[in-house]
Amino acid sequence: MSEVKVAAIQMSMTRVVSENIEKSIRLVRQAAAEGAQIILLPELFERQYFCQERRYDYYEFAGPAEDNDAVKALTRVSEELSVVIPVSIYERAGTVLYNTVVMLDCGKNLGIYRKTHIPDDHFYQEKFYFTPGNTGFKVFDTTYGKVGMGICWDQWFPETARSLALLGADIILYPTAIGSEPVLGGDSSGHWMRTMQGHSAANIIPIAAANRYGIEEVEPSEENGGQKSSLSFYGTSFMTDETGDVLKKAGRDSEEILTCNYDFELLRNKRLEWGIFRDRRPEMYGTLM
Amino acid sequence: MSEVKVAAIQMSMTRVVSENIEKSIRLVRQAAAEGAQIILLPELFERQYFCQERRYDYYEFAGPAEDNDAVKALTRVSEELSVVIPVSIYERAGTVLYNTVVMLDCGKNLGIYRKTHIPDDHFYQEKFYFTPGNTGFKVFDTTYGKVGMGICWDQWFPETARSLALLGADIILYPTAIGSEPVLGGDSSGHWMRTMQGHSAANIIPIAAANRYGIEEVEPSEENGGQKSSLSFYGTSFMTDETGDVLKKAGRDSEEILTCNYDFELLRNKRLEWGIFRDRRPEMYGTLM
Repeated sequence: MSEVKVAAIQMSMTRVVSENIEKSIRLVRQAAAEGAQIILLPELFERQYFCQERRYDYYEFAGPAEDNDAVKALTRVSEELSVVIPVSIYERAGTVLYNTVVMLDCGKNLGIYRKTHIPDDHFYQEKFYFTPGNTGFKVFDTTYGKVGMGICWDQWFPETARSLALLGADIILYPTAIGSEPVLGGDSSGHWMRTMQGHSAANIIPIAAANRYGIEEVEPSEENGGQKSSLSFYGTSFMTDETGDVLKKAGRDSEEILTCNYDFELLRNKRLEWGIFRDRRPEMYGTLM
Repeated sequence: MSEVKVAAIQMSMTRVVSENIEKSIRLVRQAAAEGAQIILLPELFERQYFCQERRYDYYEFAGPAEDNDAVKALTRVSEELSVVIPVSIYERAGTVLYNTVVMLDCGKNLGIYRKTHIPDDHFYQEKFYFTPGNTGFKVFDTTYGKVGMGICWDQWFPETARSLALLGADIILYPTAIGSEPVLGGDSSGHWMRTMQGHSAANIIPIAAANRYGIEEVEPSEENGGQKSSLSFYGTSFMTDETGDVLKKAGRDSEEILTCNYDFELLRNKRLEWGIFRDRRPEMYGTLM
């Protein structure tokens, strides 16, 4: 299998989990109908982005991966449509909570990746919710190619993309939840894109990022300490070729399915021809550790 | 010292070393007259790009750093103008030859960096000429800020830029010699730019790349085994802000001096505010080594 069609889905979320799961299924079916074989959904698409506020009761959102409603529903869809779907969930493993992707491949569960890098900023308060992942970087050997997974904040780290490329990934997928910066200000979307375009270019590998869109409001409550805030998620999901050039890009405020065709075998040869993996010098990389 | 003006010089080279050194001095003077305090010249600007062919007699181009004519001339210029100039040379250290930068700071020699990553391809036959550098990545504490150095092929490696950022660089400079790919084909300039834009974005640090331009021809000779070839160096020197956005970009075929102002203190704060250096997880980076 060399030519593969990959889709990135951009969607908004309501406050009702079942609605979000239903929407994800509808969009996965639509992507598969367009021929997509690997289908990327946004990060934590079961809910609005609960990390905007700190609430102890939200720890209850986490559960064992095998019991997760989205995983169960999408396992059936993945089997029926013969597609690969990484499913981003809030995972509970014993008494430890992780931001996790479950990799579904034609109905089979290929295992999990737990988000390595956890952000912490005003309204992106993930260190309150997630223990930094302990799985290490993971490339999943799927029916359609070797899929390297990063999760949102991982996408800022050259170490993630380089590790996945070294582990043999054919493509790197990033489910994402990113938007406005109410305190820092500015619009990070260009910075965000260029960072991942750079990972793509430096590793000669296509990447896809699937983001949510829409405004999500938080009302003051006893549980959140009286916080009132909102985040405007900026969509802008995109997919690159192996030189970091953007092939497809979604709008800032629309439901969209992006698709691109890739020839993974051709790209494996390009990674060799350019010589950058040949010329690495790990003995000089001590500063990174 | 927080606000600094940095210049990147794009130039072509003749077959006469003294002409190239004279041109470099003229352009450095012009950049300094425009207020530049850190001035980047292209890679190996003393000569046409001799690595296009393999000739044993070209090993004679290498010499001790302190005896190099460009270093000697530019040391005086650096002192006179009170500027920082990284000088790219072919260095001989005993019987080992390196692709080296000598860092000049207001007339002082702050030391050398030897190119870590050495390419090898049709007409970029650097493994024939240069032993991979043994200095490790270097950040030089100059009068105007902490200058991180990469040399040409280093610019493709996220490990270089990340290491320099971790070592405290305020800016990363890449002297370069890159152009056409007579065998692979295509134009790598977009790929090349996006790779470095990505390093800039991922490390929240400005970068500058100074390339040569012009066509350099090689005639068949006994010494080069009868090779006839040419390379068209594509200029396109550029400088970014700390988000990887291109602030200045040169044409493909023109002598140019690019300049940008940076507030290094402000940028140091931005690197902290974004949190990516806080959230690195070296214990998970074993794959890189």
